[in-house]
Amino acid sequence: MPPLKITLAHGSGARSMHQLIDDVFLRKLGNPILEELADGATLDYRGKIVFSTDSFVVHPLFFPGADIGKLAVCGTVNDLVMAGGEPQYLSLAFIIEEGLKFAILEKIVDSVASAARYAGVAVVTGDIKVVENGACDKVFINTSGVGRLARRLSLESVRPGDKVIVSGDIGRHGLAVLAKRKELGLDFNIKSDCAALNKVLVPILKKTSGIRFMRDPTRGGLAVTLNEISAASGLGITIEEKEIPVSRNVEAAAELLGIDPLYIANEGRAVLVVAATDAMEVLALLRKHELTGKASIIGEISMRHKGMVVLNTRAGGWRIIEMPSGEQLPRIC
Amino acid sequence: MPPLKITLAHGSGARSMHQLIDDVFLRKLGNPILEELADGATLDYRGKIVFSTDSFVVHPLFFPGADIGKLAVCGTVNDLVMAGGEPQYLSLAFIIEEGLKFAILEKIVDSVASAARYAGVAVVTGDIKVVENGACDKVFINTSGVGRLARRLSLESVRPGDKVIVSGDIGRHGLAVLAKRKELGLDFNIKSDCAALNKVLVPILKKTSGIRFMRDPTRGGLAVTLNEISAASGLGITIEEKEIPVSRNVEAAAELLGIDPLYIANEGRAVLVVAATDAMEVLALLRKHELTGKASIIGEISMRHKGMVVLNTRAGGWRIIEMPSGEQLPRIC
Repeated sequence: MPPLKITLAHGSGARSMHQLIDDVFLRKLGNPILEELADGATLDYRGKIVFSTDSFVVHPLFFPGADIGKLAVCGTVNDLVMAGGEPQYLSLAFIIEEGLKFAILEKIVDSVASAARYAGVAVVTGDIKVVENGACDKVFINTSGVGRLARRLSLESVRPGDKVIVSGDIGRHGLAVLAKRKELGLDFNIKSDCAALNKVLVPILKKTSGIRFMRDPTRGGLAVTLNEISAASGLGITIEEKEIPVSRNVEAAAELLGIDPLYIANEGRAVLVVAATDAMEVLALLRKHELTGKASIIGEISMRHKGMVVLNTRAGGWRIIEMPSGEQLPRIC
Repeated sequence: MPPLKITLAHGSGARSMHQLIDDVFLRKLGNPILEELADGATLDYRGKIVFSTDSFVVHPLFFPGADIGKLAVCGTVNDLVMAGGEPQYLSLAFIIEEGLKFAILEKIVDSVASAARYAGVAVVTGDIKVVENGACDKVFINTSGVGRLARRLSLESVRPGDKVIVSGDIGRHGLAVLAKRKELGLDFNIKSDCAALNKVLVPILKKTSGIRFMRDPTRGGLAVTLNEISAASGLGITIEEKEIPVSRNVEAAAELLGIDPLYIANEGRAVLVVAATDAMEVLALLRKHELTGKASIIGEISMRHKGMVVLNTRAGGWRIIEMPSGEQLPRIC
């Protein structure tokens, strides 16, 4: 029978840690490379690889549509894709608070396993640390990822006239997490958009040639991602409010809370900057896939208002979408 | 003027996070790949690569001989080396507790930078998360690493008669950390052995052919590492107490605390299993370098007492070195 709770001994390098690795991690995530339990995984590569890392501290651990385990896989898979990579291998490092229920850890690792299967990536190396009660908030996860470069993308290739595409409706992840926080007692009936985008985006990256740059609008939402693109490219971005996909539930919840959906984190969305001549083709390919069925051309790169993001409102006016100075919702990823 | 303390806004993806990245991380760790600030770093490889990850939760953050920043670099560099790799690139992911003094973060990043310079590795991608006061213990760091495979090592190649070498005196890291814990008020005058071993070990790996396997005796110390080797190889290990290098200070402190130095964590030591014919050559090469000047052949792999580690004592007796069931000292790495 497995123990009921995680103890400091599970992070000790000793017998109980080996048992935890065997009983939970190898059983759920096993593959020939991971099973070597070497200090590092050996992988075979020719050419350029992409390498990325992300830590996940989301609170609460479980929320509608996903949990910290799925998030940890999707987050790093998506970061690799955004960098033009085809994700293949992940590392998985847990920091666990002593006293965590074993069943919760199992559920999280199950989630990691099923998200990794869906994304077609293998967990090939890992680490477990257990800290005393009070020294962390239940579980933090870091995943790093390695993949083959499918296409070199860069902000330097962005040109005036390029179209800006968002791959789906925005604002779901942040609100799904927020609604689940016990102290708030809200229920918006919104599921996180958390998803691995590699199976949609990598084939499109390979098939088309017009994608200049991609970034996932996570912390700070679409507003931060667009501001990063305009600041780094030195160009302006004009977006049309009416083209930005937002579900009715998200619109209602955001209004209630006084939060702009543009600033809410997403975990299964991408912003693509695409050459104008290829934008319709990329859009059509995106719309064929369930995860990106609501993709939309929301605006374009321009020579005007350089370094700034301007929104043309539904009402016919316009406003500047500012870089926020802080996050409204902490611990959403 | 930089802010005095880290706030949640520093982890928000917004302006203050960008400023933190520019002012601290890029300034101290900058290189062309990191400066792209892409979602992932693009690296060029032909052939086999090694990939490893480790989280660091050491408490306290600063201790004699090192700190969490140096440890985070050395730990992952050493893991890559143990897997037969030549470390080249690191990811760096911080989880920071809100309220951390900015000066402390700067000091840690300085340490990361100087340890990376010493080891000849570049930090090429990273992540920052800030959690609320109380949700973590000041700072946790994850580093993952990528390097070229220098030599494929494996436990399967270990043979009876192979020699077991430890690269230096043991027990310093765990005791240095322990002594620094405020509540204990101890002072053993022991410095952590924390060090990156790649500049010593990779050239030896390339120059000689007799090294079968390497592992760094971190959590659980030499006892756990030797037990892992004997369990996984199915062979026995006999070690000689008189050949195991232990400094006088460590011996005294361990005796005072009733801890066996064999079970204390090290962060700059390696256990090498080497073909008998090559052991003297490897030992001589190790002894030329400051970091491994006290290397010693401590025993050998045998067909007897399979799966077990036996210590021949100074007094002429023997005892079994058991796999411990838990760690005596939590949060030492």
